[in-house]
Amino acid sequence: MSQTMSRTTATTLPGDHPGIDELYGLLAHGQLTAFYRLAEDAAFAPDLAGRVAIARLAAADFDHFELLCGALRERGADPETAMAPFAEILDGYHASTAPAGWLEALVKAYLGDGLAADFHREIAAALPADVREVVRRALEDTGMSEFVVGEVRGALAGADPLAARLSLWGRRLLGEAVTQAQHVAAQRDGLAELVLAATGDVSGLGVLIDRLQARHTERMESLGLG
Amino acid sequence: MSQTMSRTTATTLPGDHPGIDELYGLLAHGQLTAFYRLAEDAAFAPDLAGRVAIARLAAADFDHFELLCGALRERGADPETAMAPFAEILDGYHASTAPAGWLEALVKAYLGDGLAADFHREIAAALPADVREVVRRALEDTGMSEFVVGEVRGALAGADPLAARLSLWGRRLLGEAVTQAQHVAAQRDGLAELVLAATGDVSGLGVLIDRLQARHTERMESLGLG
Repeated sequence: MSQTMSRTTATTLPGDHPGIDELYGLLAHGQLTAFYRLAEDAAFAPDLAGRVAIARLAAADFDHFELLCGALRERGADPETAMAPFAEILDGYHASTAPAGWLEALVKAYLGDGLAADFHREIAAALPADVREVVRRALEDTGMSEFVVGEVRGALAGADPLAARLSLWGRRLLGEAVTQAQHVAAQRDGLAELVLAATGDVSGLGVLIDRLQARHTERMESLGLG
Repeated sequence: MSQTMSRTTATTLPGDHPGIDELYGLLAHGQLTAFYRLAEDAAFAPDLAGRVAIARLAAADFDHFELLCGALRERGADPETAMAPFAEILDGYHASTAPAGWLEALVKAYLGDGLAADFHREIAAALPADVREVVRRALEDTGMSEFVVGEVRGALAGADPLAARLSLWGRRLLGEAVTQAQHVAAQRDGLAELVLAATGDVSGLGVLIDRLQARHTERMESLGLG
């Protein structure tokens, strides 16, 4: 966070900027979609402990969803209206990245959560303080990392073809996420301005994506995926 | 509650009675299963508002699940071990009552919640005070009634064949629930003793089921189903 905050080129958006409603709407729909995807992917869980762990993550996502809906209502915005523009893009991302098994589902949830948190870090400098706090809480750690890293590293032990397959999977996830992020930026002026304000640069989205990619690679490594 | 509490024949079980772990295990698995079934049935929701409402109910079920797991751990019991005996019976109930659409899913969730709350009312007198409080909180209203009654009554308006179909569905749900309750009573001595202590009668389960049936019928009527 401190790295981002010290960037002198960032501009803080006014509190009534339309990019803030759009950001809340995107995050809210993202959390609701994540809730349902996790619940669906739990069918891959090998045991009751796995199903419990996934339900816990999904419930945390729903809490974040409620927080964002509350923040939208406080701004006089209707949550459903704010979420609606992002349904197609989020569904598109999930449809193109349907996991084929337990480990792919875990890797997807973990990398997706990480990307969302990094995105927040990148745009935080452009957000008014109260908005920044809502977004921080909505993307805070759901306790997933420890569980996923343990499961994936345990499964990888000595299984080289599995590692190669999951590495490919992780790269595909980033590719699809970047594709969809570019759609969002092209379609939602408010969010595009928000990114511009945060990066202080017209090539802001590209720079931001490069940084997200670097962090994504670090997370892949933490899973034992080169 | 007062009706049950005033019954002088009820015996309060000692705090270390095995029926209490079994009750917590049954309720915990029931809430976890309900969480996943709701998430799955949300695929029938006609719109985003329906998906949000169902996710909210599912998240409330998960909170109750966590409460019960905490109570089991405080008793020195392992939640997974306590839940395991009920997996087959709960899966059997849900497999035999898979809803075919949105209204069937809502009716099922509403009637099932009501049955669980009534069951607690019936056995409350046999529970030590701290256990009674945990069970009360684990079965407390998730805010479902208002939503479901509104949706079902709205859909029924003027649609007689639909009302007939949903009435049949409601009766089938009760029949399956009673069948599974009899399996539980036959297999779990602790829970059977708990019911006996609550009703003070060897024919306790039959009497209890009669009362649950009467309340079930009232709930059907509140949905507009004769």
